[in-house]
Amino acid sequence: MKQVIIIRSDIKMGKGKACSQVAHGSLHAYKIALKKFPEKVHQWEKEGEKKIILKADENELLRIYEESLSLNLPVALIRDAGLTQVEPGTITALAIGPYDEDILDKLTGHLKLY
Amino acid sequence: MKQVIIIRSDIKMGKGKACSQVAHGSLHAYKIALKKFPEKVHQWEKEGEKKIILKADENELLRIYEESLSLNLPVALIRDAGLTQVEPGTITALAIGPYDEDILDKLTGHLKLY
Repeated sequence: MKQVIIIRSDIKMGKGKACSQVAHGSLHAYKIALKKFPEKVHQWEKEGEKKIILKADENELLRIYEESLSLNLPVALIRDAGLTQVEPGTITALAIGPYDEDILDKLTGHLKLY
Repeated sequence: MKQVIIIRSDIKMGKGKACSQVAHGSLHAYKIALKKFPEKVHQWEKEGEKKIILKADENELLRIYEESLSLNLPVALIRDAGLTQVEPGTITALAIGPYDEDILDKLTGHLKLY
């Protein structure tokens, strides 16, 4: 099991901002996964809570979001309140899982590490 | 309410690594807070889940950790498995809260943003 968090590569965010968006995504996807697939979440916790941070532009991020939804994966699209650095409502990150590594690799294996 | 995540400033981590440590901390402190102070967590969620990312060296991070424990705050000290970039067991981050902003400001208000 792993959790993948994709940060938007086509907008400028400072590293603290980026980290906070990753944390938002991680927590939201975790909560969704815990409701939908608690046994997968517990297995992920036992295995050490692997988290992978990737990057993609908005189009690619939205494409992966739609595909994740169609596969019924636990997925969280993160929009920022926009008080600093970005416009209100800006999409900043996408988090998927915890879920099976092979499924997530098929969806995100082509992306670069953040 | 807010959650504060402090990343270690005196070791070198790439930005993806740093983000994953922040996410580990955020999730662990959230789980602890949910058990100890569920009403504070729910208030934080209603208010938009404010997360602040700060930095400190290891000594200062450990000092804040001890003080947080003595105040019975929900706190998570993050050590890395050390498969990449750092030695196994290296302390990488500290997360506190969600908890009352004024208490967290007293503890961490002197730290710089990451």
